[in-house]
This record gives sequence, structure tokens and C-alpha cells, in this order.
Amino acid sequence: MAMGFVEADVISALQKIFATNDSRVQVGIGDDAAVLSTSTQTLLSSDMAVQDVHFTIEWSSAFDIGRKITAANTADILAMGGSCDFLTASVALTGNESLTWVEELARGMKFEAVLAGAHIVGGDIARSEKVVISMTALGHTSHPILRSGAQIGDSIFISSLPGWSAAGLELLSRKNDSQSSAAKKALAEFSAPTIDYATDFSRATSMVDLSDSLIIQGAQVADASGVCLQLDEDLFAQSPEFLELASLASALDIEIFQFIYAGGEDHVLLATGLELPGIKIGTVIAGSGITGMKSKVAPVSWSHFGKGK
Amino acid sequence: MAMGFVEADVISALQKIFATNDSRVQVGIGDDAAVLSTSTQTLLSSDMAVQDVHFTIEWSSAFDIGRKITAANTADILAMGGSCDFLTASVALTGNESLTWVEELARGMKFEAVLAGAHIVGGDIARSEKVVISMTALGHTSHPILRSGAQIGDSIFISSLPGWSAAGLELLSRKNDSQSSAAKKALAEFSAPTIDYATDFSRATSMVDLSDSLIIQGAQVADASGVCLQLDEDLFAQSPEFLELASLASALDIEIFQFIYAGGEDHVLLATGLELPGIKIGTVIAGSGITGMKSKVAPVSWSHFGKGK
Repeated sequence: MAMGFVEADVISALQKIFATNDSRVQVGIGDDAAVLSTSTQTLLSSDMAVQDVHFTIEWSSAFDIGRKITAANTADILAMGGSCDFLTASVALTGNESLTWVEELARGMKFEAVLAGAHIVGGDIARSEKVVISMTALGHTSHPILRSGAQIGDSIFISSLPGWSAAGLELLSRKNDSQSSAAKKALAEFSAPTIDYATDFSRATSMVDLSDSLIIQGAQVADASGVCLQLDEDLFAQSPEFLELASLASALDIEIFQFIYAGGEDHVLLATGLELPGIKIGTVIAGSGITGMKSKVAPVSWSHFGKGK
Repeated sequence: MAMGFVEADVISALQKIFATNDSRVQVGIGDDAAVLSTSTQTLLSSDMAVQDVHFTIEWSSAFDIGRKITAANTADILAMGGSCDFLTASVALTGNESLTWVEELARGMKFEAVLAGAHIVGGDIARSEKVVISMTALGHTSHPILRSGAQIGDSIFISSLPGWSAAGLELLSRKNDSQSSAAKKALAEFSAPTIDYATDFSRATSMVDLSDSLIIQGAQVADASGVCLQLDEDLFAQSPEFLELASLASALDIEIFQFIYAGGEDHVLLATGLELPGIKIGTVIAGSGITGMKSKVAPVSWSHFGKGK
């Protein structure tokens, strides 16, 4: 198998791309570990993505792949009510990649890290038959927001409408080359989901990142909090993006709530609380699970081994 | 491909194995991120291991594989003069593993984490064609020891004799079934390298973990510090383990310093300073690189892409 580069070249290129003068990074890439200034309450989360399971080289640019796996990590920190400060990136490469491809991957990681206000401070390089990217995010918060805090009487909010990434996947799967603005948005969201770092859910009673879908992670909030999430589909329909996603779903002959409820791979935040920003979609009531879903949605089983989170 | 289990079963099993009551773990596995009490100076390092590159299922038990990759991570924190507090473990599985194999992997991780005084607080599960294990270690120190601090006039110390793991690999490669105590030790070190968590190198001027070999990482210290490491082979020979490793090397018809200098995959610490514990092996002098190596050692190029660290 041809090797396009040696490990030292990759590490040298990554060191340049990830270089930072931020004073919180006392020692960055190049020693046995990074030395970092942190708060005393630290958030730590890891996410792994595997070629042909979570992404394909054919469908996504290296830059977008880098953004997407970084976003999966920063979103986990956001979902705790925190800010992401530092990331490590370990990457197994096949050896068939060009150095340019690896640099673009790193630039995508850096791009998303900068959006999140974070620095990439370490990692590892290995060889594998498929590309595997494993990142760890370190963040901070003075007030962690858990899945277990939803209170009866709270409203339920989402930071934006989920389902775009799933619609993008559907377009790609069907080789549908629609040039509508909705199709473009769906494809962009599939490639590198937008995270709204600005939505202020700091007063939420509970929060979660909808990377596995609203059905699955809504149920986790309900379960952890001992409550029922009562959704109101009319409220979803008031979202400014609803009509646009509905037009795309209609063109694909798929019920829009299939995308919204069961999509996954969006980094939309779901929060409970009183008078939060974002889109109100329901109310927390006594009971368990999720209720109020009128639209018929095919069963989802992201819990199949290998879906990742 | 037959799937031996579903992801939820794996996560549930891991949550039980990794459970902790340590008060520093405010929120462990189960939310979007762990919430941890940390110091304000944090060490962060990641290491990835790929099946058939860094380990094989045939040669190593799941428990030993778990220990070995965990040790690679905790050793990086030790090599900064720190203590490892928390770890995340992301694992891509093929789906052909039994749940028992995965549990044993986790028990091996936990075993080494306990030796290091650390807790496993998060991670991810994914699917891949080969097992890939990616861990991140978070530790603390009030006084980081870098590669760049070696001073002319310092002595050079190692925490124990390196080379055992390479000797074990050689035995396995040759299907050599020697039952000598040296052979047993070499095989055990290959499977799960011993880390001496007790050696006090806190007064070292520079320190590094010899996971890539003494030649490579010694040269990194010399380069970062702008000095020359002058080794003395007679000093190595005074190590209590030297005769035992020499007997094994002789039986394999390999120069012992091939193992000691070029072995790698040991988690021996190399430190510079005055009157440190461990085995004194030389002196820091003016110049560059490493000198004093009389024994003829075949060129090593761990820097080939894919060797990992």
C-alpha cells in the first residue's frame, strides 16, 4: 500500500494548523501531554467517528468531516451548559490519504473549534484500514445542566429545527440533485451541522444534544427526570424553517416529522425551563416518555450497535 | 455480520464496570459529558491503538489489551510529572466480539486506571472493521516536567530497564515457547507493560516516556533541551534486570542493546536531574543528540507512518 507521507510530516503539519498563542495553553502539541489552565469544574466528553459508518470520503470533504466530528464533541459540552475550551484529536489514517487531505481535515477541526472558542491541544496518529477519528472535548461550567432536571410545568424548547441532516442524507442516498434552497441547506447540514453557539439556554432545567434524534434523546430526558414530554406539533409548524423543510420532505414523499423526530446527526439542543429562547415545542407534564406525537413515524432503532451517538 | 450484542448492552455493562463513588466525579457516564472536580493546571493527552497494528486479538487477552492502552495514556501524564485523575475510552468494535470480551477489555482498563489512581468517566462506542481504542487522560500537576529542561551536568536516569516488551514481541514472532523466567517476564511486559507509578521523578529537570524507544525519545529530549545525552553502557549493565534480559537476548541471538535502545512499547520513564531514583545511565553534556552508544544497533524507524506512539 502506498504511503503518501510519513507520520512526522503529518504531526508537523498538524502542529502548524493547531498552533495557538492562547495563554490558557501553557504547553500544546509536542510534549507527552498538554498543560492547560482550567477551571475547577471541568466537563469531559469523547466522540468517535468511523469511515463508512459515520461519514464517507466520497460524500464529504475532509474539511467537512473535520468540522462534523468536532461539532459532535463541542455540542456535548454545550448540552451540559458549558463552554468548550480544549480538544484532542486522534486519527487513524489508511495511508492512502494525501497530506493535503489530512491538512484539510485538520483545518475543518480547527474551523469548528474556533467557532466554539476552543483549541486543539493534542492527539495521536495511527494507521487503520478505515479512517477513524476520535476526539475528546474539555470544557467548563459553573452550573452543569443535566438530563435529570426537567420539572413539571416547564416548557420544552429546541435551539433550531432538527431533521435537516437526515433530509440531506436522504437526498444523497437517492442521488437527488435538487438545487432548491432547502436541498442545499439539507446537504450542508448533513456535511457539517450548524451549531448555534449563541442560544442562551443557561437557565434551562435540563438539556440534551439531539445527535441521536428527538425521540431517543427526548425519552432520555423524560426518563432521567421522571416526567413526560408533551409535544405540540402545531408549535413546531410555527418555526420559520418548518415550511422550508416541509417542502423538501414533500418532494421526497416523506412525512416531515420523520425527519424532525427521528433524524439524528443534528446538533440541535433540547432544553426544558421557563421562558427560554429558541422554539417552544411543548410542555413537561406528569408521566413518562414522550406524548403528543400525532404524525406517524417509522420506528427508529439508532440503538443498533454501531450507530454511535 | 453477526452482532453479538446491542450498543445499549455494552454501555450498560461499561457503566457498571466503570462506576465510582469518588467525590471528584460529580457526574459520570450517562449524560452528555462528565462533570469533574479538577485542579486549575490540567494535563491532557490522547493515545489510540488499532487492532493488528498495536495489538492482536490472537496474542493478547481483552484484559491485557485494555491494560496496555490505558497504561499508554497514564504514562503520558506521569511523564509530565503529573498524576492521572480521569480517562475517557472510545472503542470501535467489529460486532463479532462477545459481550464478555468487551467486559474484559473494560476490566483491564479499570485495573490499570485504579493502579494510576484514575477513573474512567466517559467515552463512545462505534462500529468498525477492526477494533480501535482511543483513550484520553486528564491529570494534574503543580509542576509540569517538560522535555526541554535538561541541563548540562545533569545525570540521566530511567525508572527501569526498557526492552522487555520488544523481547516479548520477538518471542511471539518466532513462536518461541521458552518457559524461562526472563521469557515469561518479556511476554508479560509485551502484553501489558508495567508502569512504576511509585518512582519519584518530581525533581527531574526533564522527563519523557520511552513508548517509542530510548533512541527516539532520548533524541527528542536532547533536541528540545539543546543538549547531548551521553549514555554509559557500563551503567546499564549494573541494573539488576540487565543480566536477565541479556540471557534472553543471547538465547534469541540479538544484541541486548537492540532491545534496550530501540525496543519501544515500554512505559519506562527517562528523566534528567541530580540524584534522582531509578537507574543512572549517563550524563547530560554540551552538544546534540545521543552519544556513548558503543553497541551496534540496527537503524530504527518508528517514524514510519502508522507506528503510533
